[in-house]
Amino acid sequence: MRILGIDPGYAILGYGIVDFNNSHYDVAGYGAVTTDKDQEMSLRLKHLYSEISNIIDLYKPDAVAVEELFFNKNAKTAILVAQARGAVITACVNKGLPLYEYTPLQIKQALVGYGRADKQQVQYMVKLILHLNEVPKPDDTADALAVAVCHGNSSNASGIFRIDSGV
Amino acid sequence: MRILGIDPGYAILGYGIVDFNNSHYDVAGYGAVTTDKDQEMSLRLKHLYSEISNIIDLYKPDAVAVEELFFNKNAKTAILVAQARGAVITACVNKGLPLYEYTPLQIKQALVGYGRADKQQVQYMVKLILHLNEVPKPDDTADALAVAVCHGNSSNASGIFRIDSGV
Repeated sequence: MRILGIDPGYAILGYGIVDFNNSHYDVAGYGAVTTDKDQEMSLRLKHLYSEISNIIDLYKPDAVAVEELFFNKNAKTAILVAQARGAVITACVNKGLPLYEYTPLQIKQALVGYGRADKQQVQYMVKLILHLNEVPKPDDTADALAVAVCHGNSSNASGIFRIDSGV
Repeated sequence: MRILGIDPGYAILGYGIVDFNNSHYDVAGYGAVTTDKDQEMSLRLKHLYSEISNIIDLYKPDAVAVEELFFNKNAKTAILVAQARGAVITACVNKGLPLYEYTPLQIKQALVGYGRADKQQVQYMVKLILHLNEVPKPDDTADALAVAVCHGNSSNASGIFRIDSGV
């Protein structure tokens, strides 16, 4: 099963594609889509929609996992991120992909086994589970890979994933 | 000039199409798009995107005017409306339409000449300016027509619109 994980944002959107087969994860690709802060927001949303559509065409995932919006103190930022989320979710469902949403708590629990784990712990587990030499940058990319792994783990019948193929 | 006005929402989205020529307004159509509350949010966003795309294909507007999000007390609702806004804005820009945004204050000022006008005053002016026999229902539809008129007025070189062709 190929999973596209997305950490939505209007300035930087992280994405990661992982293959999850026989309780083993492999990375197919990851990166970040950035938008031009000098552009109108509507054109930035169009760019996000278009880039996500291209990523789906390129990698052909079976499902999409998106991080749920964390209600932070800045309402204005939350509104802008929510708009970007709307554009990105629409791009995914317009490609016919099933979409799953996970809270930051669920993602931390899935990767570290502890809902209050800090960012560094999650990033460390992303690196370990996905056999990477280093933590992917920017953070949005690591977060996107984390939500993809979270989905793989939750939809895995056994609910167990292995750190590497040898375990 | 044909203007599509949109009052975004995830449960009910109001739309109105007005023709603005020679300082005169005519209504080409209006209505509301509703989504099924029992459906997943991603499918509701897909429905909004698809319906707005169809409305654009049908009416072929020259521009889109969208009401800006009012920060209400309920952060969760604001987030959901913002997501719907993101889906709808993307549908418009993907159709190549220029998009304009107006705050509730700007809309009230454009229609009533007073930023603190109440809903009934705005609806009364929508009815009057657009030569309608009654206020369009639901309210979302009247609000969508109001933002379309607001755009017509603001982009009109003279900045003046007439109540009817005889004035």
